[in-house]
Amino acid sequence: MNGAEAIIATLVQAGIDTCFANPGTSEMHLVAALDRQPGIRCVLALFEGVATGAADGYARMTGKPACTLLHLGPGLANGLANLHNARRARVPVVNLVGQHATFHLPHDTPLTSDIEAIARPFSNWVSVSQAASEAGRDAADAVAASRSVPRKVATLIVPADVAWSEGGTVATNPAVLAAAPAAPQTIDLACNLLKSKQPAAFLLGGSALYGEGLKAAAKIAAATGAKLIATYPFGRLERGVGRCAVERLPYILEQAAAFLSEFRQLILVEAAPPVAYFAYPGKNSVLTPPECEVLVLAKAGEDGAGALAAIEASLPPSGNAATGPDWNRPTLPTGTITLAGIAAAIGALLPEHSIVVDESMTSGRGLMAATRGAPPHDWLVNTGGSIGIALPLALGAAIACPERRVLCLTADGSGMYTLQALWSMAREGLKVTAVVFSNRIYGVLKREFAGLGLGQPGPSANNLFELDRPDLDWVALAKGMGVPGVRTASMESFARELRQSFVSDGPRLIEVEV
Amino acid sequence: MNGAEAIIATLVQAGIDTCFANPGTSEMHLVAALDRQPGIRCVLALFEGVATGAADGYARMTGKPACTLLHLGPGLANGLANLHNARRARVPVVNLVGQHATFHLPHDTPLTSDIEAIARPFSNWVSVSQAASEAGRDAADAVAASRSVPRKVATLIVPADVAWSEGGTVATNPAVLAAAPAAPQTIDLACNLLKSKQPAAFLLGGSALYGEGLKAAAKIAAATGAKLIATYPFGRLERGVGRCAVERLPYILEQAAAFLSEFRQLILVEAAPPVAYFAYPGKNSVLTPPECEVLVLAKAGEDGAGALAAIEASLPPSGNAATGPDWNRPTLPTGTITLAGIAAAIGALLPEHSIVVDESMTSGRGLMAATRGAPPHDWLVNTGGSIGIALPLALGAAIACPERRVLCLTADGSGMYTLQALWSMAREGLKVTAVVFSNRIYGVLKREFAGLGLGQPGPSANNLFELDRPDLDWVALAKGMGVPGVRTASMESFARELRQSFVSDGPRLIEVEV
Repeated sequence: MNGAEAIIATLVQAGIDTCFANPGTSEMHLVAALDRQPGIRCVLALFEGVATGAADGYARMTGKPACTLLHLGPGLANGLANLHNARRARVPVVNLVGQHATFHLPHDTPLTSDIEAIARPFSNWVSVSQAASEAGRDAADAVAASRSVPRKVATLIVPADVAWSEGGTVATNPAVLAAAPAAPQTIDLACNLLKSKQPAAFLLGGSALYGEGLKAAAKIAAATGAKLIATYPFGRLERGVGRCAVERLPYILEQAAAFLSEFRQLILVEAAPPVAYFAYPGKNSVLTPPECEVLVLAKAGEDGAGALAAIEASLPPSGNAATGPDWNRPTLPTGTITLAGIAAAIGALLPEHSIVVDESMTSGRGLMAATRGAPPHDWLVNTGGSIGIALPLALGAAIACPERRVLCLTADGSGMYTLQALWSMAREGLKVTAVVFSNRIYGVLKREFAGLGLGQPGPSANNLFELDRPDLDWVALAKGMGVPGVRTASMESFARELRQSFVSDGPRLIEVEV
Repeated sequence: MNGAEAIIATLVQAGIDTCFANPGTSEMHLVAALDRQPGIRCVLALFEGVATGAADGYARMTGKPACTLLHLGPGLANGLANLHNARRARVPVVNLVGQHATFHLPHDTPLTSDIEAIARPFSNWVSVSQAASEAGRDAADAVAASRSVPRKVATLIVPADVAWSEGGTVATNPAVLAAAPAAPQTIDLACNLLKSKQPAAFLLGGSALYGEGLKAAAKIAAATGAKLIATYPFGRLERGVGRCAVERLPYILEQAAAFLSEFRQLILVEAAPPVAYFAYPGKNSVLTPPECEVLVLAKAGEDGAGALAAIEASLPPSGNAATGPDWNRPTLPTGTITLAGIAAAIGALLPEHSIVVDESMTSGRGLMAATRGAPPHDWLVNTGGSIGIALPLALGAAIACPERRVLCLTADGSGMYTLQALWSMAREGLKVTAVVFSNRIYGVLKREFAGLGLGQPGPSANNLFELDRPDLDWVALAKGMGVPGVRTASMESFARELRQSFVSDGPRLIEVEV
């Protein structure tokens, strides 16, 4: 058994069943090892940012890591932006990155680079395997690191001679560590705070937004009147009929500050104190009013769900369990395409247990309101602000949950960064509906330019904000990658295409000009 | 004048006239400053790797830097792979990367990252501007660094509050430093070596492959019988009728070693000692025979052209100036598409003074031989081995030389990494002919897997090597980005489309199934 075989066998034994890959020459022994392991599914990405974004989507839906396989420093570099997002989502990811053979490195050949230095800014754990005999243990350590609390991006660098040398052994994996429970004093503090009858809210992130965490939060809200707010961005939010409605913090600084202005007590559960996304001249980045007391119940990555359960247990029993919104879907709109109409159509037609990946940017206003009374579903957004995550995230979520429909909502500008994901969706036959909002501008930038008082953009600035001249044709782009696509010109046709896509076997793309 | 305005005005004063950009919110004041500067052309890229690869192509053809404008750490990260290639090409590039306002950074908001650490592995010079009053000087320093010897990738990080604060001043630029001349003793050593009548060759890179450097090398070769070899990869090679024919070092280890085996003296001119691209089990990475004496006339980035001129001056005057190949073009092939036929058609039709960007990978065998007797042209290749450079490089070369035709030869696999460059070509109306070799495999990987004795690839490995299922449709992809494209099914139609593309006003794409 060589080093590469020891690594792959160890990963499989640790429960890793999916590899999002874009390998090169220096990774051939890892490819050969993957080839001989029936326990792991290899998904080819034609660009590395697709692979890392897919690993994020996979991890958000399964809670466990996929691995990526990337080619040397430049291949890793291409995957960094979506690793940034994955790191901010606090999901587990294990990257395998090839390196030249150790005896080749001193020659400083064209592809040589300092892979450790490249990995470090976007990885929480980095290691270079030093020998075939240690490669299995290194792989086990990478998995353990990725699953430690909080969940991490772990990058294992594998020199080619470590991969091809004999002497590898499979390592067993340590048990997955659970997050430490919140201190009893903190639980008491929160309970006392809730008793004070001052306007209170929970700012929820991480595991407080789905599963048992969200259920406990809902019961607390019903019992105490505290409001539940989803931090923005968030990794995964369960919502729809039967689930407790959680409003998300607005993106725009002034709106977010206004939204929070009523509260005097804010309890953070796997969420950081709310701060504006960007800084502005003369404006305070902190969003809470000065008179608001902020209590950290659980930091990001800590056991927020457990802390919420502990609070709930300390409350007097309530007959009324928390309830979610009623089954209340918008009526199907007709006529000309509007953003409100698209939101309504999605609200009307969203299938039960679907996964919505939302990077609709400025076109997405109204989507969450319109889907509040839809059947139960999950909502995933961009956690790190590096745009170009929606299509890869949808790919990974669809691999993770093949029985569920994935609705990927992407702006045209952000979609262009990682459009290669469409091809992988077609190859894998995934049930993804990609809706592309073609407004043909970087809408955020136009808005920010105006908001900063920079006046009317001239030709150069408009050149950098506008995506027309020529217009992107997403139906053609999808066709180029084997995904059937359609452009809709009315709300009726949008609804028809959306409905059809939801029962199709493979991916579909719908372009809407907005 | 604010910091952003000081930066842009300083860049323009230093001769920077082009900015390849993909900005975000934190770069809005830089965008506004660009907007008010008529002296700089802004070219929007829909993905940052397009911007950095274009800056490389621009610099290779002009010898001076363009700037890029990138959004925070993730935007820079998306541009790193082609910065790796640019750094290996030793071209000057100035990156402007926005950063959050200094007072915003401690909040660790979603887009926060350690931009200096991200920049460093692929930049030779990194600095963070600390105040608006210093921003102009910082920009001047970045340009000076990029133009220092050897030419460099310089990255200036600009916090948003430095950009928006008043107090900026335009800085004047120091003179561009010329490369130091080679030591007279080294020139003497080389001259003595050439007198010894042992089989000798020059391994040429950098400025020894075009202009005065190549002319001097040609005269030396004619006078001494020494062979001229282009190092591989190289940044820019002038060739065709009237220019001295220089053979490039083969890529494959065994072929390169065989090619060099006859020489007993190898003189390196802006080239490193020849080494295999990748390492292989049990094989020596060094390509020269042990009995070959290696002399470094000029290191990479040093004044190789000057050193060659000094050697030439010390030789006895020769009536016979070196001559290039005769005007000798292949006849146009007919019938079924073959790789040899494509090479012949390109050799037959290549326009005078065209720029060939070659990332044809395994489909490109025979191209250089078939174009040896074509009219004078330049040949650019991937210098760092990070694939996905051809389309961006062609974009940058076409911006640099609007009067010249650019022929971009890309494999389908490598083209997919940065296909967004097609859109920028369409927007800018550039005279680029992109030929896509659709063999629907990662051909290098298939060959390497076999060469390493890893046996017959199974389903998982083939999944990672094969780009079919579904087939990519490059004509549709081009259409999606506003570039007219065609798929050719015979040598006759390929030649017809190629000829037509060479007289078109804007970009054209020709897909050939090979």
